[in-house]
Amino acid sequence: MSRIVIENGTFLSMVEGESVFRGYLVVEADRIASIGESAPAQLDGDVRIDGHGKLYMPGLVNTHGHAAMSLLRGVGDDLALQVWLEQKMWPLEAKFNAADVRVGSELSILEMLKGGTTSFVDMYSFMDEVAQVVETSGIRGCLTRGVIGYCPPDEAAAKLVEARAFAKDWHGRADGRITTMMAPHAPYTCPPEYIEKIVAIAEELQLPIHTHLSETRGEVERHEQQYGIRPVEHLRRLGVFNRPCIVAHGVHLNDEEIEICRAHDVRISHNPGSNLKLASGIARVPEYLRAGLLVSLGTDSAASNNNLDMFEEVRLAALIHKGVSGDPTAVPAFTALSMATSIGARSIWLEEVGLLQAGMKADLIAIDIDQPHFQPLTDLVSHIVYAAAAQDVTDVFVDGKQLVRNRQCLTLDEERIKAEANQALLRLRSS
Amino acid sequence: MSRIVIENGTFLSMVEGESVFRGYLVVEADRIASIGESAPAQLDGDVRIDGHGKLYMPGLVNTHGHAAMSLLRGVGDDLALQVWLEQKMWPLEAKFNAADVRVGSELSILEMLKGGTTSFVDMYSFMDEVAQVVETSGIRGCLTRGVIGYCPPDEAAAKLVEARAFAKDWHGRADGRITTMMAPHAPYTCPPEYIEKIVAIAEELQLPIHTHLSETRGEVERHEQQYGIRPVEHLRRLGVFNRPCIVAHGVHLNDEEIEICRAHDVRISHNPGSNLKLASGIARVPEYLRAGLLVSLGTDSAASNNNLDMFEEVRLAALIHKGVSGDPTAVPAFTALSMATSIGARSIWLEEVGLLQAGMKADLIAIDIDQPHFQPLTDLVSHIVYAAAAQDVTDVFVDGKQLVRNRQCLTLDEERIKAEANQALLRLRSS
Repeated sequence: MSRIVIENGTFLSMVEGESVFRGYLVVEADRIASIGESAPAQLDGDVRIDGHGKLYMPGLVNTHGHAAMSLLRGVGDDLALQVWLEQKMWPLEAKFNAADVRVGSELSILEMLKGGTTSFVDMYSFMDEVAQVVETSGIRGCLTRGVIGYCPPDEAAAKLVEARAFAKDWHGRADGRITTMMAPHAPYTCPPEYIEKIVAIAEELQLPIHTHLSETRGEVERHEQQYGIRPVEHLRRLGVFNRPCIVAHGVHLNDEEIEICRAHDVRISHNPGSNLKLASGIARVPEYLRAGLLVSLGTDSAASNNNLDMFEEVRLAALIHKGVSGDPTAVPAFTALSMATSIGARSIWLEEVGLLQAGMKADLIAIDIDQPHFQPLTDLVSHIVYAAAAQDVTDVFVDGKQLVRNRQCLTLDEERIKAEANQALLRLRSS
Repeated sequence: MSRIVIENGTFLSMVEGESVFRGYLVVEADRIASIGESAPAQLDGDVRIDGHGKLYMPGLVNTHGHAAMSLLRGVGDDLALQVWLEQKMWPLEAKFNAADVRVGSELSILEMLKGGTTSFVDMYSFMDEVAQVVETSGIRGCLTRGVIGYCPPDEAAAKLVEARAFAKDWHGRADGRITTMMAPHAPYTCPPEYIEKIVAIAEELQLPIHTHLSETRGEVERHEQQYGIRPVEHLRRLGVFNRPCIVAHGVHLNDEEIEICRAHDVRISHNPGSNLKLASGIARVPEYLRAGLLVSLGTDSAASNNNLDMFEEVRLAALIHKGVSGDPTAVPAFTALSMATSIGARSIWLEEVGLLQAGMKADLIAIDIDQPHFQPLTDLVSHIVYAAAAQDVTDVFVDGKQLVRNRQCLTLDEERIKAEANQALLRLRSS
């Protein structure tokens, strides 16, 4: 078994209470074999990497998105959620075929890998395509076929069959890098009995549930008018929270809803960039954290962000709640970064990812800290949270395999993907 | 006279109503000689640059900061403004000598140039050092010796002499790249009669005034307790607004104060990153824009940001006011980018900067748009505002001279500056 030894590096393990230190890290097969302050002796077959000028930290975990929608980046901006969805996104998305989903997902996964994201959640259709790209690209994916239930009954039924087959077939594939979930798109896009059927499948397959929840105020109000209860109680009654569950957005939760989420260990994927851009509002993250909810971070799709830079989501999470609450200690730097690493991993049931620790999976990234915007080299947690960007990532490892070296992705053909993504959008717009 | 011809580039002129186009741009001496869709014939002595894969746009204008404070990046975070100032910043700043200010300014100017900022405002002390770095680095600087008046009278008087001498000596130097202003630090750090003396000097030298204004709610409340009026009316009565004036922050302005600012053409330097990080609040920028105020963007110092990436300030300006107001059309992408280019330049009285137009000064930057996060190449204004970062800048020209080529600064010694900045902080902390 070959070993990768990174020496002379600076390490940020993200283990609570552990300081940044100079040292080494050894990868054996898919795991971190050891990490510490003085490098081990040379062994035959070692790959030795000089980590001088680099900060090594756990790969970032993006807990909500729709990778294929990168094809629609910049297609509609400065519009309200419903207008953006109904007039810009849905008409073009309705034309997406399997090849579009493949290239859109390739483009997103390429961007994510180059920017230090090593695990991501994806909710979309044509998920076999996405899973195949995950398999070949080497990234870790928690994937789900998102289903909208308001459509002709045979179509709705067919989607359930497809979603179940996808979740069952792919769970645990690609050496365990792929996990799956079941996903009703949102309470407002699925009839209650349809959601119950999805819960039953999740129960049968023993899988978690992912859904959009209370993204906009209008959505919550319409829900109350239609059902007489708020969306969280609605999902609770439908049994959604009897399964492990992660909800995207969760912008408009009142105190009782926070308590329901806490009682059922419902995890929140906070998507600050998307929520600000679509003017959906600002999630009460400091309250969620105080209540003990697991709050992670997601980019949402590149169509509403408009990049997949998780450092930016970390920074937004650290900044906006300070500004809005008037409390400069709200969401401190380490908490924000944990949301994108250790907490992000736990939020999607990846117990062996998100920390640099012996025995954990070797999902890690290197950041070029020998740049002006990281000087002086004072508090590196602060520097990463308040000054870093995706472009500072130089090297990425997932499951012990190097996927990005010196800012070049080794597993995806960047030139082909960029060309095909532009061609795909041209076709979608002209057809 | 040698000409620089950029051909096969993509151009975003920032002229209102003008679309992005493929074409060329010619620089002659310090100015844009022509810009258009088909390149001119080759002349002897031409430097021809292939702009394929690049977006050219006006250089960014950072209208508020304290460059030397980059030495204190990451020294204090997640603290309230007064605690941060009194316990972290001021004790270390009190030890700053001329050499510290020089290297801190070099570090900031290096970071700004590499990140596409071609003009910046600086308010600090030891300003001769800053001006010399501006002169040699090639950047454009609008500089002012910020003075705090609450100190022993002889010290206060000496500062005025120094501030006046600096403003007088350096205005128009470095081929006009340096302009100067007079700067009472803030209403809460200067006695009224001291501010009046500064106004008199500004009047004598025919220079604008720069000051911090209403950054925190507490500051405004204390002002009202002390003077019985709010800070804007206070400055108006002291004659500050009889001079051309740009105020930093302007977070807490009520309707009457907006009207006073409008009536006196007081310009606002909006610093969203710093305001969020220090939990100072969120300026009512959509209202300021509706009132017709000139609102530009500033990073503030790297100690409260913690980088000098103006793309990030553009994005924050475009995002947070949508999220807070619930209006997804608030501060549209083009407006946000104008705040950092054409409006930024006008805000600091640089009438020949901020647009790519024949006759304007040749302050321009190139962005590598051949990267995954800019694909597909749909709406490039949207891409720059919602997806770009400082690290995407490859080339920078100021006054017709190339200062950054292929991400390397040609006028500042990056390795020396990084080393000296770390040494300077070590000394400050240990002395």
